Amino acid sequence: MSVLIDGLQYANWSEKIFRQMRMGGVDAVHVTIAYHETFRETVLQIERWNRWFERYPDLIFQGRTAADVTLAQATGRTAIFFGAQNPSCMEDDIGLIEILHTLGLRFMQLTYNNQSLLASGCYEADDTGLTRMGREVVAEMNRVGLVVDMSHSGERSTLEAIEHSTRPIAITHANPASWHGALRNKSDVVLKALGETGGMMGFSVYPHHLKGGSACSLQDFCDMVARTADLVGIGHVGIGTDLCQDQPDSIVEWMRTGRWTKRIDYGEGSAATPGFPDMPGWFADNRDFGTLRAGLRAAGMTDADADAVMGGNWLRFFETSFGAAREWGDTTAHAAQ
Amino acid sequence: MSVLIDGLQYANWSEKIFRQMRMGGVDAVHVTIAYHETFRETVLQIERWNRWFERYPDLIFQGRTAADVTLAQATGRTAIFFGAQNPSCMEDDIGLIEILHTLGLRFMQLTYNNQSLLASGCYEADDTGLTRMGREVVAEMNRVGLVVDMSHSGERSTLEAIEHSTRPIAITHANPASWHGALRNKSDVVLKALGETGGMMGFSVYPHHLKGGSACSLQDFCDMVARTADLVGIGHVGIGTDLCQDQPDSIVEWMRTGRWTKRIDYGEGSAATPGFPDMPGWFADNRDFGTLRAGLRAAGMTDADADAVMGGNWLRFFETSFGAAREWGDTTAHAAQ
Repeated sequence: MSVLIDGLQYANWSEKIFRQMRMGGVDAVHVTIAYHETFRETVLQIERWNRWFERYPDLIFQGRTAADVTLAQATGRTAIFFGAQNPSCMEDDIGLIEILHTLGLRFMQLTYNNQSLLASGCYEADDTGLTRMGREVVAEMNRVGLVVDMSHSGERSTLEAIEHSTRPIAITHANPASWHGALRNKSDVVLKALGETGGMMGFSVYPHHLKGGSACSLQDFCDMVARTADLVGIGHVGIGTDLCQDQPDSIVEWMRTGRWTKRIDYGEGSAATPGFPDMPGWFADNRDFGTLRAGLRAAGMTDADADAVMGGNWLRFFETSFGAAREWGDTTAHAAQ
Repeated sequence: MSVLIDGLQYANWSEKIFRQMRMGGVDAVHVTIAYHETFRETVLQIERWNRWFERYPDLIFQGRTAADVTLAQATGRTAIFFGAQNPSCMEDDIGLIEILHTLGLRFMQLTYNNQSLLASGCYEADDTGLTRMGREVVAEMNRVGLVVDMSHSGERSTLEAIEHSTRPIAITHANPASWHGALRNKSDVVLKALGETGGMMGFSVYPHHLKGGSACSLQDFCDMVARTADLVGIGHVGIGTDLCQDQPDSIVEWMRTGRWTKRIDYGEGSAATPGFPDMPGWFADNRDFGTLRAGLRAAGMTDADADAVMGGNWLRFFETSFGAAREWGDTTAHAAQ
């Protein structure tokens, strides 16, 4: 039975959205719980999720392992997997990696556009790759089963993360730069290296990542997915919509500026269009995954390949990514006894 | 097969002590990870434990469920269960109860000698019982499976916790006040109410809780255990040594004064004897549990009863105390859906 997994969302969560997930048949979602939040602030976000889990147990529950995706499907609910888009949540303390993993964090980006303690973001003029701490933290993430996500990182940093990580990494939400030359999109060199090492690429429908922006057609998007699958490998691509449903524009400002500047930074936007862009007409919310799948079939994908892209590949990646390294016999990633 | 469980220790942990636990055949220990520490400081203590778990996987591992005690026994290791002796770790945020439980906290005292946000300590002149927040927090602890521990609480607070809690509570380390009239020891009224509600009493060998202090004889101690078992119920008593092995005296000062005073408070000690008291000759470290068990037999206990006191009772208590309330069909403790 096929599964439906979205590799990234950051919505203004509500019962309405949780119900739309059910209507759309979404079995699992990787949700962003923190951008620039400190550890304590990230814990407050987990506390918010705990309230939602307690309040809507018939719709959602916290996902921790791949088996939770199957459980979600079997019980008609959506498994929610936590992720952070920046390492602010681990502050300057490598010991927080295991703590955050215990609390359920399953993905962490090493950077969000800017230089971090770990690596360089895609908006920095100079990308100096993994830092000394970055290499230590990647090894610790490998050990505990926290996926390295390089969606907002620079080219060199991303390539170094792929090389240094002993376990496959992810780019949860981006598109090929060869299709749409945004700083956030990825070069064919990165995409190829990602696929060759067993990593996962999640295609984004966030307009700033789309050729033609909000006007991008479903066919154009799905043709790109099919072409990129040939480059990365059909077993290593999935969806990561980057859906930011119902968020006020104050949130995109927080995402872009956090507390690192007192000025406005428009990021992928501009002074003329500072807010969230309009979503493409064919993907407004979680009820539109069926449309997306139909688009993949129309782009020439087989049923099996469309299933793989819509969730099968993420599920296989979840199966080998979230447990401690020793559970997977990956002794290289495990600290010496 | 009988198990050996200690209901409380706060040692200056080291490989030496972990090896002594193995020599003593200790299957599980409830260890104190925090007194006056804030949430972030408590997390730092968990990080320390994570390092020990990583470094000594053949000796110790983190215990989360009763099944981990069995696993420890089967693999020749000691399962370490976390607890806090004061609610400082949850600060003023009820949401941290579930977070701390997810991180493995299994016991939390509502007070440590002083008034807390939740209840009154045994050293306060007026014991006003559970506070408004205290009642909310006990319900939340019941819901997630975090055991209410009233070892350092006042009489009224303890009785109100027993009454208000929908799940059995614990007094992990104390003795009967009728045997030795320390403020920290418990009245027969408390002990009886504890046993009648399925709670657990852990007997302490910390000299300030012993009749005659460090000079207390093994026989006197074991006779007291046997007598108290008749009062509380043989199924509701265990050991909670309060062993503070290898700790420097600066630690007993931190335990007593935290950051609540700038002056010295001697607690159970005095200006003449400010440090840790000498342990009784018959219990110096984890290798002495066999001596203790022999003492219980000499005091007239059957083999079966001695096994129950040395660990069997704690194991049964662990089995029904650490999971979410709904797992135990205790719908009263679970928030309405």
